[in-house]
Amino acid sequence: MMFEEGQNMAKEFGAENVYDFSLGNPNVPAPERVRDTAVELLKNEDPLLLHGYMSNAGYPDVRKKVADSLNKRFNTAFNENNIMMTVGAAAGLNCALKALIDPGDEVLTFAPYFVEYKNYVANFDGVLNTVSTDHETFQPDLNALSEAVNKNTKALIINSPNNPTGVIYSEETIKGIAEVLEKKQKEYGTEIFIIADEPYRELVYTDAEVPYVTKYYDNTLVCYSFSKTLSLPGERIGYLVVPDEAADHEDLFTAVSIANRVMGCVNAPSLFQKVVAECLEEKADVAYYGRNRDKIYNALQSYGFKCVKPEGAFYLFIETPVDDKEFVQEAKKEHILVVPGTSFALGGFVRLAYCVSYETIENSLPGFKRLAEHYGLS
Amino acid sequence: MMFEEGQNMAKEFGAENVYDFSLGNPNVPAPERVRDTAVELLKNEDPLLLHGYMSNAGYPDVRKKVADSLNKRFNTAFNENNIMMTVGAAAGLNCALKALIDPGDEVLTFAPYFVEYKNYVANFDGVLNTVSTDHETFQPDLNALSEAVNKNTKALIINSPNNPTGVIYSEETIKGIAEVLEKKQKEYGTEIFIIADEPYRELVYTDAEVPYVTKYYDNTLVCYSFSKTLSLPGERIGYLVVPDEAADHEDLFTAVSIANRVMGCVNAPSLFQKVVAECLEEKADVAYYGRNRDKIYNALQSYGFKCVKPEGAFYLFIETPVDDKEFVQEAKKEHILVVPGTSFALGGFVRLAYCVSYETIENSLPGFKRLAEHYGLS
Repeated sequence: MMFEEGQNMAKEFGAENVYDFSLGNPNVPAPERVRDTAVELLKNEDPLLLHGYMSNAGYPDVRKKVADSLNKRFNTAFNENNIMMTVGAAAGLNCALKALIDPGDEVLTFAPYFVEYKNYVANFDGVLNTVSTDHETFQPDLNALSEAVNKNTKALIINSPNNPTGVIYSEETIKGIAEVLEKKQKEYGTEIFIIADEPYRELVYTDAEVPYVTKYYDNTLVCYSFSKTLSLPGERIGYLVVPDEAADHEDLFTAVSIANRVMGCVNAPSLFQKVVAECLEEKADVAYYGRNRDKIYNALQSYGFKCVKPEGAFYLFIETPVDDKEFVQEAKKEHILVVPGTSFALGGFVRLAYCVSYETIENSLPGFKRLAEHYGLS
Repeated sequence: MMFEEGQNMAKEFGAENVYDFSLGNPNVPAPERVRDTAVELLKNEDPLLLHGYMSNAGYPDVRKKVADSLNKRFNTAFNENNIMMTVGAAAGLNCALKALIDPGDEVLTFAPYFVEYKNYVANFDGVLNTVSTDHETFQPDLNALSEAVNKNTKALIINSPNNPTGVIYSEETIKGIAEVLEKKQKEYGTEIFIIADEPYRELVYTDAEVPYVTKYYDNTLVCYSFSKTLSLPGERIGYLVVPDEAADHEDLFTAVSIANRVMGCVNAPSLFQKVVAECLEEKADVAYYGRNRDKIYNALQSYGFKCVKPEGAFYLFIETPVDDKEFVQEAKKEHILVVPGTSFALGGFVRLAYCVSYETIENSLPGFKRLAEHYGLS
């Protein structure tokens, strides 16, 4: 909906006069190596292998390369049998949930959260419940987590760097989450999975480390996407990690592979499996987003807006002086498009995606200044 | 499973000594225009547009080109708002079913059928029931269809050219099906959809026409894939047609778009959307399959095997002189891999996929001859 709205406003007022901060659509191009690799594969590989079916989990050599890259970067010990290539992280999440949950099972996530989680869980007749965060830092409330887990809890979805807040969960936070879940697993005699949704893993602007969750908690599945790191959101390419340490990991790997098949993905797109395997050390221009972050964050701060300074992803989650939907409407008068926090299950905030051109940010600032003045912030 | 089995046997005995007829994996390469178009797009298009997000339904210009091509070839009157690009036909079927059925609803299909239909319907807590066909011709039994439809029937999945039998439903058959369903819609005051699964539409070896089903029945959704026509099964690219004539077609189009998003596909792979839009008049070398068909069909006939001569797709559905699973095991001794009919809900037959090299067919024939002799067919 927001996608169409931005396009329509751009048509009406001219693209340069609309400041569309509503979409998490990367605006720095894919690394050149992506194009070069794709062209080379198209020219030199046997088209039957390049475009043909393979195992539902993906090409074994691609999965091996992904495993090796993770091992090198995070000191893990994966092999190709721990990696399933997926149609982006969204499909990976769906496969994970289909494999894990039965009707009526409960899944937890920290609010605010990417609203699609609710739909994904509902696909399998599960129930998504939210756990609160500290609204100053947006770090998880571990006491609230402990209270929210019950015998029907099958999984906790975490997302760090976080959409919509941009915060990163520290090692201490991950250890704390793991401790709570370990205890609850023992208490109820159940398996409780962490599903780590990590499309923003590589988009970090500080020295903050993003802990690799499988190292802290055995029952962890990681959903990764190359959408942001390589600026390939339209190509739908990512992977799912099922570690050996997870309960019944072989059956679980079979289950996610079957889910990939029967939900209709069948396999991740074949050419881009091969492309990303050659671009595992590549990143789109993350510094561009960092420069955007500094510009918009500093400006909004100076106008009197309040928000956590994001360490990763490409979002600001801004406290609104009025109801967030009302603020969204007021911002539209300035041709500024942002998403209400209620869309992330937390009113009183709006999400601003700064994956836009630096010029868009510069040109939007007078509008933000007028908004601040309108609400008496400055 | 069959995929891995064939690969393992090839490792053990040498690929040239294994006759793997178990997979519907095209063996003629994609047309050169596919490669040339992909390379050109990669070199000349803005990577942000080429690999970026677009509406969940796909690029409007691509959908327009698909609509225009259908209109030209089938004298239909579609526009871009009737076309949603999908992650292959499998994802299209899942989106269609998610949009149409509620828990407990019934879906019909003619047996034998592509076994995944059952899984797709089960994804939405629907029930798939089968309707018999004439086992001499594998044409649908319209009386049986009429008896099978009840007030809970939401859809009938048809697949012509058919997997696993290779038969094509004539215009008369389609008219007959439409007549039954029209009558039942009136009788029950319900909407009953035909979901036409058409990945084999372009793979036809005779003068037979494959009627375009939307022209015969208003409540029709068409699921198409480029997997077979352009030999791109690994790329996961196809489309779903929602005609204006379908009941509540605007809501239905919205529903399939949302299904595309929330089931995790989000959109069809972006580069290959653009590629297929430039290759709508292209076909892989269908004559190659035709030559295979003649060779294997004539040989098996001469050995005493019985099967319908297929008009389309790339399968033979062969009557087995013994239980089909027993026959499959016996065939394995000859290093011949075929799929038991029970996998298509019809025992007493096996499916042979002749999308293999001509040499594989030639080299497999002595083995088939020995099988025929073993069972006293010749």
